[in-house]
Amino acid sequence: MKPFRRLISKAEALDIIKTSITPIERVESILLEDSYGRILAEDVIAAFNVPPFDRSAMDGYALKAQDTYGASNFSPKKLKLVGVEHAGECFEGELVSGECVQVATGSPMPRGADAVIMAEDTKKIYDCIEVYHPVYPGANVSFKGEDIRKGDIAVQKGEQLSPGKIGAVAALGIGCVKVFAKPLVSIISTGSEVKPLESTLEPGEIYDINSYTLMSIVSSNGCIPKNEGIIPDDHEAIRKALRRATQNDVIVISGGSSVGVKDLLYDLVEEMGEVKFHGVQVKPGKPTLFGIINEKPIFCMPGNPTSCLSNAYIFLIPTLRKIARLPEAEPKTVKAKMGARVVASSGREQVLTVKIEKGIAYPVFKKSGTITSMTNAEGYIVLPINIDTIEEGEEVEVTLLE
Amino acid sequence: MKPFRRLISKAEALDIIKTSITPIERVESILLEDSYGRILAEDVIAAFNVPPFDRSAMDGYALKAQDTYGASNFSPKKLKLVGVEHAGECFEGELVSGECVQVATGSPMPRGADAVIMAEDTKKIYDCIEVYHPVYPGANVSFKGEDIRKGDIAVQKGEQLSPGKIGAVAALGIGCVKVFAKPLVSIISTGSEVKPLESTLEPGEIYDINSYTLMSIVSSNGCIPKNEGIIPDDHEAIRKALRRATQNDVIVISGGSSVGVKDLLYDLVEEMGEVKFHGVQVKPGKPTLFGIINEKPIFCMPGNPTSCLSNAYIFLIPTLRKIARLPEAEPKTVKAKMGARVVASSGREQVLTVKIEKGIAYPVFKKSGTITSMTNAEGYIVLPINIDTIEEGEEVEVTLLE
Repeated sequence: MKPFRRLISKAEALDIIKTSITPIERVESILLEDSYGRILAEDVIAAFNVPPFDRSAMDGYALKAQDTYGASNFSPKKLKLVGVEHAGECFEGELVSGECVQVATGSPMPRGADAVIMAEDTKKIYDCIEVYHPVYPGANVSFKGEDIRKGDIAVQKGEQLSPGKIGAVAALGIGCVKVFAKPLVSIISTGSEVKPLESTLEPGEIYDINSYTLMSIVSSNGCIPKNEGIIPDDHEAIRKALRRATQNDVIVISGGSSVGVKDLLYDLVEEMGEVKFHGVQVKPGKPTLFGIINEKPIFCMPGNPTSCLSNAYIFLIPTLRKIARLPEAEPKTVKAKMGARVVASSGREQVLTVKIEKGIAYPVFKKSGTITSMTNAEGYIVLPINIDTIEEGEEVEVTLLE
Repeated sequence: MKPFRRLISKAEALDIIKTSITPIERVESILLEDSYGRILAEDVIAAFNVPPFDRSAMDGYALKAQDTYGASNFSPKKLKLVGVEHAGECFEGELVSGECVQVATGSPMPRGADAVIMAEDTKKIYDCIEVYHPVYPGANVSFKGEDIRKGDIAVQKGEQLSPGKIGAVAALGIGCVKVFAKPLVSIISTGSEVKPLESTLEPGEIYDINSYTLMSIVSSNGCIPKNEGIIPDDHEAIRKALRRATQNDVIVISGGSSVGVKDLLYDLVEEMGEVKFHGVQVKPGKPTLFGIINEKPIFCMPGNPTSCLSNAYIFLIPTLRKIARLPEAEPKTVKAKMGARVVASSGREQVLTVKIEKGIAYPVFKKSGTITSMTNAEGYIVLPINIDTIEEGEEVEVTLLE
């Protein structure tokens, strides 16, 4: 088999990936109601003021502030109630000194009024209200444009749409936004022994695991998985699959566990594009290959399901998020005490999956070939290359898996 | 207006909600590729062993371990290569002492073989291999069932499907899983002044913000929003809308900023079901109402966009996640120094939105009526009822918004 040219460190691999990929440029228009978490592709500029008019910020009475000066519990000021304004309605007339209009939160300020007194600070007596304390001009008024000023950028290009930012777009009456498209990610499994789910297995065959773990990684990191199915271990078949896959933005091919297929993938990537690295000093996941075909990044992941998924967490997620323009994932970490002695003498950085019970981290890693090394994992610890033992009871930092 | 019967604390409100709601029981079958993040509604039990056969865990040669005993660089053991097994194929014959079969990672163990030696620990010479060190029986073999044993529960009912758990389901060939349905959440806006996006505003009218912020909160917390549109401030119209909405699992109605509508909602919930609380000692968001109609929880949220969204973070998200059976949200918190003096004299717990620059938290809260109090927020701090001032430079804990 083709030897690894030079094993590189995990950090080097991440650096090479970072400098080889570019954020997506394709944009699409979507409904605002579907826009949560998406990345805005153009500034949203306010075409008008929000609110578009001066309005009451309270339920109460709009009045002239100077009519309330000197009011107190002992000498209330009396104002004539000349109208009731329901929200969405405008008081027709113009208020003069000594008058007030009942308003609700959001009601436009009647012409002539410059303040609102809260209902609870007044008493209604027939067609009058008594005011028990003064209000200053502007009190309880939301001024035109105080939320978003006409011409301002309400939400910037490149920002991720949160509920609060979606609210600002809605305030401007915009029901459709231009966002960056979700990158399309081709998922290919190889291996003549690998069969589709729900099929009947012959002796020596196993079900396709990697397509499903990879699809979930892809869809939960702002991208759209395109399942290209299982391709047999055949030079022409894989070449065709790769060519078709390069129509998408990223290609992830897993497996090729049979003798010769690893070389085949190396040769095909070299022939169709460029191999950027092959072989990483990380366990599990050493035989990972990263390259570029037609400007599209391609990952050839190990066929072992735990190696494949572990590498997806470490290399694929940062790649997908950068291409999708999402902020970097910031996985939570917790401190725990190691529940068992661990010996790792691989000479590689080792990713060790664990579950945590009452602050104690127990290894759940069995073998690279067992998916349950990931199924039962709540997180993982990373052993640096130069450390080969963790004693029971030693404190470790666990990165939690989503 | 109807007075609040008794303002309750935020903690009391959360307690009342918690004891009034139940997790969803409805289940549905979905494709495994769409199952990320969903909650499994039945145990996934292994119908067979994974792997289904003993197989090689390495690329190398399957052999009888005892044939390698005593092997060293100085006295290698020589074995006859009697076959090559590609993945998915089974070696037809039975290996006898002195023989070996070339195998790839994942290849079934040939009959008669009990160990695998890695290719790099051997040398191929014509039709033989030289073995340079001994292997023990079972070395580099993945045994039938060592990943998942037949009859075992691979993933339990109630667990949230992560990539690793999806992988375990795939390993069992299962392409379709039974999960709990996503709760359906009716979103209703009220207010005669509130108009749909993309429509033309008349004087005194504003666009519907709350439906959009609420829909994004709903869809990002494991539920499906059902936008019921804007209902005019009319007793019969709102009654009809509520009745239709109770077909779904949760009802969230926002607004009613005009005089009388708040009472109307109180009366309608009381008439159609039960008001559980009305009025919370929290700012913004005091006039929140929570009740039950036809066993369905209903929230009447304040119309002010910041009050509505702030309350959605505090009260609605925990509700939705419990009903959807999702694990409780664990928002990230960070320590920061306050960038400005804050005075809050509301006699209520106060939620103050902030943005953070270089470890300093600056208030972005303007007014309850301004959506930009949320748009520009990266997080919020909570001022307890008994604290009314935070000095500039004081350390605060900021809960980050998603």
